[in-house]
Amino acid sequence: MSDNPIGVFDSGLGGLTAVKELTKVLPNEDIIYFGDTSRVPYGNRSKETIKRYAMQDAYFLLSKNVKMIIAACGTVSSVAVELDEELPVPFTGVVKPTALAAVKATKNGRIGVIGTTATINSNSYQKEIQKQNKDLYVISQDCPLFVPLVENGFISKDDEIVRLIIERYLKKLKDEKVDTIILGCTHYPIIKNAISYVMGDNITLIDSGKETACFSAEIIKGLGLQTEKSTKGNCHFYVSDTTEGFSKNAELFLGTNVSHNVDRIDIEKY
Amino acid sequence: MSDNPIGVFDSGLGGLTAVKELTKVLPNEDIIYFGDTSRVPYGNRSKETIKRYAMQDAYFLLSKNVKMIIAACGTVSSVAVELDEELPVPFTGVVKPTALAAVKATKNGRIGVIGTTATINSNSYQKEIQKQNKDLYVISQDCPLFVPLVENGFISKDDEIVRLIIERYLKKLKDEKVDTIILGCTHYPIIKNAISYVMGDNITLIDSGKETACFSAEIIKGLGLQTEKSTKGNCHFYVSDTTEGFSKNAELFLGTNVSHNVDRIDIEKY
Repeated sequence: MSDNPIGVFDSGLGGLTAVKELTKVLPNEDIIYFGDTSRVPYGNRSKETIKRYAMQDAYFLLSKNVKMIIAACGTVSSVAVELDEELPVPFTGVVKPTALAAVKATKNGRIGVIGTTATINSNSYQKEIQKQNKDLYVISQDCPLFVPLVENGFISKDDEIVRLIIERYLKKLKDEKVDTIILGCTHYPIIKNAISYVMGDNITLIDSGKETACFSAEIIKGLGLQTEKSTKGNCHFYVSDTTEGFSKNAELFLGTNVSHNVDRIDIEKY
Repeated sequence: MSDNPIGVFDSGLGGLTAVKELTKVLPNEDIIYFGDTSRVPYGNRSKETIKRYAMQDAYFLLSKNVKMIIAACGTVSSVAVELDEELPVPFTGVVKPTALAAVKATKNGRIGVIGTTATINSNSYQKEIQKQNKDLYVISQDCPLFVPLVENGFISKDDEIVRLIIERYLKKLKDEKVDTIILGCTHYPIIKNAISYVMGDNITLIDSGKETACFSAEIIKGLGLQTEKSTKGNCHFYVSDTTEGFSKNAELFLGTNVSHNVDRIDIEKY
């Protein structure tokens, strides 16, 4: 048993979709979140840069005595795979839990994966899926405009621009008749309704934030690391750019105002 | 007279529109360009972060013995205005030259300004325009999706998505019957044709890269700092992320392959 907090980090805001789910499955746990808002987005940076950033993010969380670290970021999970070996606490990214869920969900054996350019170029989801079952067919597509769309409020299924961009990026997946799509970036659940509207209700969308939260809860319980407290846990948020910008957008992801619980740190020091 | 190079920097690639124009007006000058590709975009970061980044960018250029520094970045020029006083060499941003050109161009006295969120929130162009003529009417609009659009190849006037996003952002300027629009971000000239198509041919678009290049040439000549060489100058490019990513996109801005002339540096050291 451990009352230490769970550490979650992301390049920016997307990881909050995992935090939201974590508070549902492990309501009594304290959570420390770090969003690297001064260096977002990671998705179009080089492998080397992403790895350096991810190590700094993890070391910051370790300085807060976290008992587990979750990289709630498709890009970090896909590119900085060696984090797992280098950290002194249990670690998970989003790739493994999300891939497992997709393998379970597909009926026709055809899975689509969407994510940032770095995530898709890494082939991380495809490798993990085919590790489970090499006969599954995987088709991938990077959607580099989705993160800016979400962060600038273009999220409604009623918005023609949102629908057209989704149609453009996902045409190949539709033509290939996938029945399951991995939302391989933690920003994408925010436009889940619009994606569903464009692709049709018969397509199962796998939300990496949600699956990773459930998977992390199993690790925590499996290792006997859950808290002994029976009261609701606290979430504290740290960011590398101003707290104001974060608080405003965080509400979109969490559905609640967190401005009293946000502090800024200098991530380059870690 | 000085054979030292001219230094140009931007958060990423946009400043290349200014470099292209500089090589036309000052063909014999050497140019050192720095694109902060590991920290791009600046436009939605805090004022404090943008200032810190801009100082580092300028100090890197000074380490290359530049005789003048051009911040070919609407965001830096709008937010880090004190750079001018802190640097030991002549300096210009894009705001002043571009505002002067717009004041000259307007016939009906109604000027539109578009740029990143940080640029528009700073009111920099409006202040500079009204310093010239306080009777001019200025209406501003931030267009935070334009940079990601350009950097992901959504640039054609024949693309419905490009047209719809431009229409959405520029509706207010159309309704207000501006006759002149400042492209207040050095990325925007890449979608100049599409903007012109949506807004109509009777609107004058002021290209900040072009105006800043002409203004810089006047400063260089005015101070007697031009080179004595009569041969074509060299351009050397430095970036903070991988050189491969830069070279690929730079061709879009410069119309020529520069991959043999790009090096990577660690900007955090400056």
